Amino acid sequence: MKRGILFVVSAPAGCGKDTILEQALKRDINLHYSVSATTRAIRVGEVDGVSYHFKTREEFQQMIAENQLLEHTEYCGNFYGTPRKAVEDMLSEEKNVVLKIEIEGAANVKKMFPEAVLIFILPPSMEELSRRLHKRGTEDEETIQKRLLQARTELSRAKEYDYVIVNGELEKAVDDLAAIVSAEGFRESLNTELIDRIING
Amino acid sequence: MKRGILFVVSAPAGCGKDTILEQALKRDINLHYSVSATTRAIRVGEVDGVSYHFKTREEFQQMIAENQLLEHTEYCGNFYGTPRKAVEDMLSEEKNVVLKIEIEGAANVKKMFPEAVLIFILPPSMEELSRRLHKRGTEDEETIQKRLLQARTELSRAKEYDYVIVNGELEKAVDDLAAIVSAEGFRESLNTELIDRIING
Repeated sequence: MKRGILFVVSAPAGCGKDTILEQALKRDINLHYSVSATTRAIRVGEVDGVSYHFKTREEFQQMIAENQLLEHTEYCGNFYGTPRKAVEDMLSEEKNVVLKIEIEGAANVKKMFPEAVLIFILPPSMEELSRRLHKRGTEDEETIQKRLLQARTELSRAKEYDYVIVNGELEKAVDDLAAIVSAEGFRESLNTELIDRIING
Repeated sequence: MKRGILFVVSAPAGCGKDTILEQALKRDINLHYSVSATTRAIRVGEVDGVSYHFKTREEFQQMIAENQLLEHTEYCGNFYGTPRKAVEDMLSEEKNVVLKIEIEGAANVKKMFPEAVLIFILPPSMEELSRRLHKRGTEDEETIQKRLLQARTELSRAKEYDYVIVNGELEKAVDDLAAIVSAEGFRESLNTELIDRIING
């Protein structure tokens, strides 16, 4: 039976992955977001069950124990994980699913789902990334410098991904992501039943 | 150095590959057609050097002897081949190249260029293909039946391709091809220098 495709999007902080995904999910393409679980504190503007499923450490540990998570990692002192059932339900309904997770989590997903498609979003340059982090104004200088250092390390792992997109201009980056989602649906390996159906009528 | 991508498009007769390619090449995407050489007779409406490079059998044999062809095959009693230099020049200028060749030739290209991207165009159904071949009115019933039989054999080889597109509605099929061309340009393996450049400034 045909199943949906599992996409994973990662990017260093400030590369605009949230906005790109938000815009892509609004488009009329087969792409559905699966909400992650986390133990980090909820931020202003975030909605439980939409931004993340916010969990206590105890709840999170229980999800792990009950094998409810497809993958989980610790990042900056908090747990992040992907609830398994929501993903598997959507995939079996031929819905393409996108996860927004950091690099360690993405690598874990690829181990378990070798057919998952990993997309890395790059900043146009480190200077531009620095400019964006300063412009955001949500972090002090020390945190920004830490994030830039971390971004450099994370960028060096872009080679573990299947695709890379540069977020220079938002609309273009969304087009690029949409093209990848669309193209991956035409993979021969996903369409063997279709080919048989055409041959055999 | 970054190079262009080599695409190969194949389809049974009547699946509309000529029209799809014609439309795709008119779009503002990085896609350039490389004209094949053939020994078959020129048809009404065809232009030498545009439709094909029309060659005598002697000229064609000489091109083979001089290693001027990237691949060549015999098909329905005529030789078809891909002039090497034009393709290599465009690829080294970072131009994506598309070849329109039949299945044996496509398989030969893939052997020599494992990184080539093979796209197969499918009819929506055998009934629809039959309708289109009849509508064209260029072949008698016996030839049409032969083509349909051949189409079935060719379709069974679609599994050797990377992507399959259904030509149900022309505009959609052109969009699909364009999405594949676009997405393939974002492959991580083609962008390692870009990643290094961003990291190292």
